[in-house]
Amino acid sequence: MKAIQDHYPDDLAHCFGCGRLNEHGHHLRSFWSGETSEAQFTPEPFHTALPGFVSGGVLASLVDCHGTGTAAAAAYRAEGRDMDTLPPHRFVTASLRVNYVRPTPLGPELLLHGRILSISGRKVTVEVTVTADAQVTVRGEVDAVEMPDSMRPAAVGASR
Amino acid sequence: MKAIQDHYPDDLAHCFGCGRLNEHGHHLRSFWSGETSEAQFTPEPFHTALPGFVSGGVLASLVDCHGTGTAAAAAYRAEGRDMDTLPPHRFVTASLRVNYVRPTPLGPELLLHGRILSISGRKVTVEVTVTADAQVTVRGEVDAVEMPDSMRPAAVGASR
Repeated sequence: MKAIQDHYPDDLAHCFGCGRLNEHGHHLRSFWSGETSEAQFTPEPFHTALPGFVSGGVLASLVDCHGTGTAAAAAYRAEGRDMDTLPPHRFVTASLRVNYVRPTPLGPELLLHGRILSISGRKVTVEVTVTADAQVTVRGEVDAVEMPDSMRPAAVGASR
Repeated sequence: MKAIQDHYPDDLAHCFGCGRLNEHGHHLRSFWSGETSEAQFTPEPFHTALPGFVSGGVLASLVDCHGTGTAAAAAYRAEGRDMDTLPPHRFVTASLRVNYVRPTPLGPELLLHGRILSISGRKVTVEVTVTADAQVTVRGEVDAVEMPDSMRPAAVGASR
């Protein structure tokens, strides 16, 4: 099944958190499921905070990418069109809030759930939770905005 | 010069963001400087968001680790003792807020600055900014708390 991120155009698919064309990174893959989004992620042994627990930075990265992916999926849905139609939606993060409600154990698969809190113009706010061993360990919110034209690869290339 | 993170005990020095004993990760090194803390970090070419810009997740990770490091340094200072004295201070993140005020260009060295906003019992709140090409691109806040006993390696080992 194609993930939300599989619909990102090739020139926008290099994100360290979720880019399928990034040779490193986390390769997060998010899926739309009914009214929410889901992703699974098993951290690497070196994604440590303190030994035995997942790095808060890695968790923030997962929340971030799951949030922007969910925002893109929501934007297509709000327009009543499929994710493989043009023009593509690609969101970036304006603001990220992450609460570490308990330590996240390193080892078990992590489950991410995303839920749309609001859609307003080019801005979508998404709630994202991380669950490990059936307990929510992280609660985050992502304010995602449609990628500005100044970040498009053609614009970046032209300015350098 | 020893970084704040160089004072973390060996069994607490594996963080993906700043652990000197993590074979992967970002190896962020923070320094106390007068009333603020500073760090320099040059992202790898694969720390991409969209091509040409730094991943929001990586930036969140830097803010996170610079915040907890600054909190530890502030805790020593509040007690009037050096960072190489015992017992060690080691903070973890309770909450992280990151505002991406403009896209962060991928290429130039990033400068991080930390400033203590409050110290209250075991909690220290730190403001962290990221600057690239002399422009602040990220403003973050980290609520850091002294590592709970349940996260100490001996406790983690005993429960598994």
